[in-house]
Amino acid sequence: MNTTSHDDVRALDAADPLATLRERFELPDGLIYLDGNSLGPMAKSIPAEMARAVSEEWGQGLISSWNDAGWWELPMALGRKLGPLLGAGGGQVVVSDSTSVNIYKAVQAGLAMRSERSVIVTEAGGFPTDLYITEGAMQGRPNLTRRLLGENGAALDDVLDGDVAVVLLSHVDYRTGELFDMAAITRQVQAAGAIMIWDLCHSAGIVPVALDDCNVDLAIGCTYKYLNGGPGSQSWVYAAARHHGKIRQPLSGWWGHAAPFEFEQAYRPEPGIKAFLCGSQAILGMRALSAALDVMDGVDLAQVRAKSMQLTDLFMALVDQECASHGFGHFSPRDAAKRGSQVALTHEDGYAIMQALISRGVVGDFRMPNILRFGFAPLYISHEDVWNAVAILKDIMETEMWREPKFSVCSAVT
Amino acid sequence: MNTTSHDDVRALDAADPLATLRERFELPDGLIYLDGNSLGPMAKSIPAEMARAVSEEWGQGLISSWNDAGWWELPMALGRKLGPLLGAGGGQVVVSDSTSVNIYKAVQAGLAMRSERSVIVTEAGGFPTDLYITEGAMQGRPNLTRRLLGENGAALDDVLDGDVAVVLLSHVDYRTGELFDMAAITRQVQAAGAIMIWDLCHSAGIVPVALDDCNVDLAIGCTYKYLNGGPGSQSWVYAAARHHGKIRQPLSGWWGHAAPFEFEQAYRPEPGIKAFLCGSQAILGMRALSAALDVMDGVDLAQVRAKSMQLTDLFMALVDQECASHGFGHFSPRDAAKRGSQVALTHEDGYAIMQALISRGVVGDFRMPNILRFGFAPLYISHEDVWNAVAILKDIMETEMWREPKFSVCSAVT
Repeated sequence: MNTTSHDDVRALDAADPLATLRERFELPDGLIYLDGNSLGPMAKSIPAEMARAVSEEWGQGLISSWNDAGWWELPMALGRKLGPLLGAGGGQVVVSDSTSVNIYKAVQAGLAMRSERSVIVTEAGGFPTDLYITEGAMQGRPNLTRRLLGENGAALDDVLDGDVAVVLLSHVDYRTGELFDMAAITRQVQAAGAIMIWDLCHSAGIVPVALDDCNVDLAIGCTYKYLNGGPGSQSWVYAAARHHGKIRQPLSGWWGHAAPFEFEQAYRPEPGIKAFLCGSQAILGMRALSAALDVMDGVDLAQVRAKSMQLTDLFMALVDQECASHGFGHFSPRDAAKRGSQVALTHEDGYAIMQALISRGVVGDFRMPNILRFGFAPLYISHEDVWNAVAILKDIMETEMWREPKFSVCSAVT
Repeated sequence: MNTTSHDDVRALDAADPLATLRERFELPDGLIYLDGNSLGPMAKSIPAEMARAVSEEWGQGLISSWNDAGWWELPMALGRKLGPLLGAGGGQVVVSDSTSVNIYKAVQAGLAMRSERSVIVTEAGGFPTDLYITEGAMQGRPNLTRRLLGENGAALDDVLDGDVAVVLLSHVDYRTGELFDMAAITRQVQAAGAIMIWDLCHSAGIVPVALDDCNVDLAIGCTYKYLNGGPGSQSWVYAAARHHGKIRQPLSGWWGHAAPFEFEQAYRPEPGIKAFLCGSQAILGMRALSAALDVMDGVDLAQVRAKSMQLTDLFMALVDQECASHGFGHFSPRDAAKRGSQVALTHEDGYAIMQALISRGVVGDFRMPNILRFGFAPLYISHEDVWNAVAILKDIMETEMWREPKFSVCSAVT
């Protein structure tokens, strides 16, 4: 096996077409932030934008800003910014509410499109909220049932049949980082007559996505990971144009009405993607998201993907090269083409090791029971960051720093 | 009838114990803002708080702020600030999601508590989203039906029977401003075995509310009207402690799980009010709301209510005194005890008149078909503001300024 030298790594940075983008972000000095797959950092443009939003739009504009500052149109305006990143033609993406709420809307809309069917399919190992929300979608509807991919080894073939109404899957697994074949799976699901819903929380903004070309029915995703929208920033929903006019989802609030200011007594959904809107949105959070998306303007996602694959390949190779004797297992696919932008290692003392890493300025996160998760965001992570992160990991293992009692006290919240 | 003089009005302001609170708000010079029942103004403390939240909490703290800056606990922390304003003892209020989403959760939770019943009751003349969301709650559940108060003259007595599971009513009517008797109606609804859900969008923060003492089951409300939380700021939910441990609502996201970081496969609701949480919240909006609620700290709601009644009484009396010949009708109760903090006038040219008023710096709003709506927020509106507003209204009517063509072009959005 070839070894990788520090000079090799510097050469990769010297050739990086995205290297200057880091300047657009505020990152604490000395920090190697490998947790952008959980919360992206703040763009430097945000503070001024937020100051303007509060003092001018709210403070001075008051109620008139719903029109004059475009608050009312923000869900669609943000959707227009996101569309190109998702391979979605105009008018098919809208931003509103949380990811969990949007999963619920999408699942319910899918059930309504296949009202003669009664089965929801999702993954046993999916992000818990996907499981919890599909469980919630069955509340008060005893005719509905759920099948879980991966439960007792069930593959997609095993669970698909003429009863399946919707299939909800993650494009990238939140733990392993595995990237699934959107086109092939969508075809398979639709061949069985079901509605395909993709959860793109871990791929939007980092993996080129082609929702239209893959003929996806519905998709949702968050904006605070690789899209850097800010803590808990609102989520997006995609619905293919062919479904517009037929979207019925039960969170039928006034923002989704065809004529929200006519104050009609009966709900009449807006014919387009706005049928996924519900009620008033926390506008200040959307303003931050808007500025964050502007940072992506003109960025070539193919270059982002190429660098992402290089960074994750490099990390895995360096862990093998430098830390081979320290008991780490690889939990992510070795083939970069089958991987999102994160790498998961396993270690029985993973929690303490991650705490030690964080104390040394290398921020990843830990997931039960033994997973160390590292995200690599090409907009602000360099190859040298990867080199330094592995050097620190090696030092922590060789000095057994992680055995210090303070690192084993479980205080993790997110 | 006694006439009211400018000196009388100045005397009211001189005796106003709340007069100094106006200094806590940023209001454009010369503006008489009578639309705080739609969007409250910005507290002066907000810009610094938002700057801190973005630059320190997000920019520097990054993912650690979920713990260290208390982001994760904000829904409960904000609930603790709201509780005293709602007459709610500890642990019964949480802030999360939009008002529409929370109405949905509450209705579904009520239906689950009365699963042997099948009828939802709400008002024909309620805020449209209350109608739309209760309609949505029936999606995919053909066993459910809805009865509307006020439809064909139906009173509460007419619609209550042993089939009614939940009753959703507004405490203050969004158009007329009528204030309903929470204690009596709650008793009547519960005597019929149904769950009582109050929508407090137009009373929270302005009318003393006693949710515990009125034995209310569930309540929801927004925070961007009289609580001044900012555009679209998150909504709150109240659930009486006696229901805790029995709350099942279908937006069962991971934030509502009893052990959100155990990543269990099955949903297990947190035993308390957190069962109403769903997914990640737009934290920046919550930070603004938090600072806004601090402005209310130490404010006596009884004094707020007393001044509110005085302001609305004064407005109605001055409209009668100064504008008697101009064709206005009163759409709000004349008895201040039966009124929230808003006054609705009717006029066949209401839209143009309101546009003319706004152009003269008196901001209220217009509601179809002919309603001029004025909100009076005692924290920043003076009696002299009311005097001046009516003087401007009189001038607009006497000069027929409202007939200028520019005022009749319907461009209203909110």
